[in-house]
Amino acid sequence: MVYGLYYWPGIQGRGEYVRLALEAAGADYIDYALLAARRGGGVPALERFLQAENIARPPFAPPFLQAGRQLIGQTANILLFLGPRLRLVPRDQSARLWVHQLQLTLADFVTEIHDTHHPLSGSLYYEQQKSAALRRSRDFIAQRLPKFLQYFETVAERNRAAVPWLVGRSLSYVDLSMAQIIAGLQYAFPRAMRARMRRYPRLRALHEAAFGRPRIERYLKSARRLAFNQQGIFRHYPQLDR
Amino acid sequence: MVYGLYYWPGIQGRGEYVRLALEAAGADYIDYALLAARRGGGVPALERFLQAENIARPPFAPPFLQAGRQLIGQTANILLFLGPRLRLVPRDQSARLWVHQLQLTLADFVTEIHDTHHPLSGSLYYEQQKSAALRRSRDFIAQRLPKFLQYFETVAERNRAAVPWLVGRSLSYVDLSMAQIIAGLQYAFPRAMRARMRRYPRLRALHEAAFGRPRIERYLKSARRLAFNQQGIFRHYPQLDR
Repeated sequence: MVYGLYYWPGIQGRGEYVRLALEAAGADYIDYALLAARRGGGVPALERFLQAENIARPPFAPPFLQAGRQLIGQTANILLFLGPRLRLVPRDQSARLWVHQLQLTLADFVTEIHDTHHPLSGSLYYEQQKSAALRRSRDFIAQRLPKFLQYFETVAERNRAAVPWLVGRSLSYVDLSMAQIIAGLQYAFPRAMRARMRRYPRLRALHEAAFGRPRIERYLKSARRLAFNQQGIFRHYPQLDR
Repeated sequence: MVYGLYYWPGIQGRGEYVRLALEAAGADYIDYALLAARRGGGVPALERFLQAENIARPPFAPPFLQAGRQLIGQTANILLFLGPRLRLVPRDQSARLWVHQLQLTLADFVTEIHDTHHPLSGSLYYEQQKSAALRRSRDFIAQRLPKFLQYFETVAERNRAAVPWLVGRSLSYVDLSMAQIIAGLQYAFPRAMRARMRRYPRLRALHEAAFGRPRIERYLKSARRLAFNQQGIFRHYPQLDR
C-alpha cells in the first residue's frame, strides 16, 4: 500500500504527526506537500479534495490521508487508522483505545499551543492580536503547560513496562507525537521549557528515545523534514516566552 | 452493563454528548454528576479518579466513562467505544471511521465555540477577557460558524440515503452531537443563528429528527436534562451575538 499524505506545504503543522508515524514504520507514502504543484502536489492537490463536489466523505481540513479508496481526515483519526497497519500500537483493543485517548489529549494540547500566538482569529496576523497573545501565553506557561506535561509524565511513570514509552513495551504513534510536541515547545518557548523540563525525566527520556530511533533520526536529518518556522503551530516570539 | 458517567455537575458541557448517546440507546447508566456528593456523586466522585495515584490509565479531564474495569476519557473516544455497543454507528469499519472523523470535527467546533467567551484563559472570568471575547466572537460569527455549518450541511447532502442523518441510513451518535450543537448555538447566538440557519435545511431537519426521537424527547423533558446556562460551553452574552 502506498499512502498519500495531503497537507499544507512549508510547515510541519499537524501533518507532522502523521509523517513521523509513516517514517518510523518505513512506510511507502507520497507527501503531496513536498511535491511541486506542476507535478501534482502543493496547494492545488489539497484544493482538489477540499473543493470537489463528488467526494462522498469530504475532509474538513488538512491533513488527510489517501489509503486505497479511503480518504481519512483528522490527525488523530488518521493515526487511529494507521496504528495497527504500521504496528505502532499494542494488539489489545483497550490499549489501543488508551493510545487514542492520549493522542486526543495531545491534540487538545496542540490547539492550546497554537492559540498562544493566535488567540483571537486565524485570519488575523500575530501582530494584530499581540496583546491578547501576551495574556494567553502568560496563562499558558503558568497553568496549561505544566498541567499537560505533568499529566504525560504521570502517564509514563504509570506504564509498568520498564521503557521510556507512554503505553506498553514498544514505541507507539503517541510517543512520536509526544516527542514532536516537546521538540516544538523547545523551539517556541526555550526559556519556559529549560526551566520546566528538569521536572519531567520520563518525558526527556521519551523524547530522546523516540527521536533517536534509527529511521526517525534519518528522517530528521533528511530534506523531507521541514525546520520549525514562524508559519507553523510552534512559533518563537521571545516576548511570549516568559 | 451499567455504565458510569463522570462529569462536572451543573452544566451540560462535554458530558452531554455522551448522555445523549446513552439516552438514545436506552442504556443503563449512572450519571455521577446528578448524584449528591454524600451518595457517591458530584465533584468528589470526579476527584477520586483525577487525583488517585493507583490508576494505570488516568483521564486528563472529565467526561470519563466507567465500563466494567475500563475507564475511558475524551468525549470522542468514549463515543468511539460506545458507538457499536449502543448500535449508534454503521457496521462497516470505514463508515465507523468516518463517523469518528465527523465527531472530531465537531469537537474542534465545540472548542472554538467555548473560546468565543474565553479566548484568553479558562481561569479568568468572562468579564476579565470581554474585549478579546468581542473580537473573537466577531471572527467566529463571520468566518468559523458558517464554515463549520456549511461543511456539515454538505456532509448531510452527500449522504445518499434519503434520511436526515449525516452518515448512512440510521441515527448515529454524531447526529445527536450535531443536534446538541445546533441547540446550543441557538441558545448562545440566537440572532446570528436565526439569520444563518435558513441556509441549512438539512441541518434543521437533522436537529428536529434527532431531538424528536421518542427517547430523546423524553430525556429532554426530564429532570436529567440540565438547561443551558451561563456556566457551560454555550453561553448567551447578547454583546457577542452580532
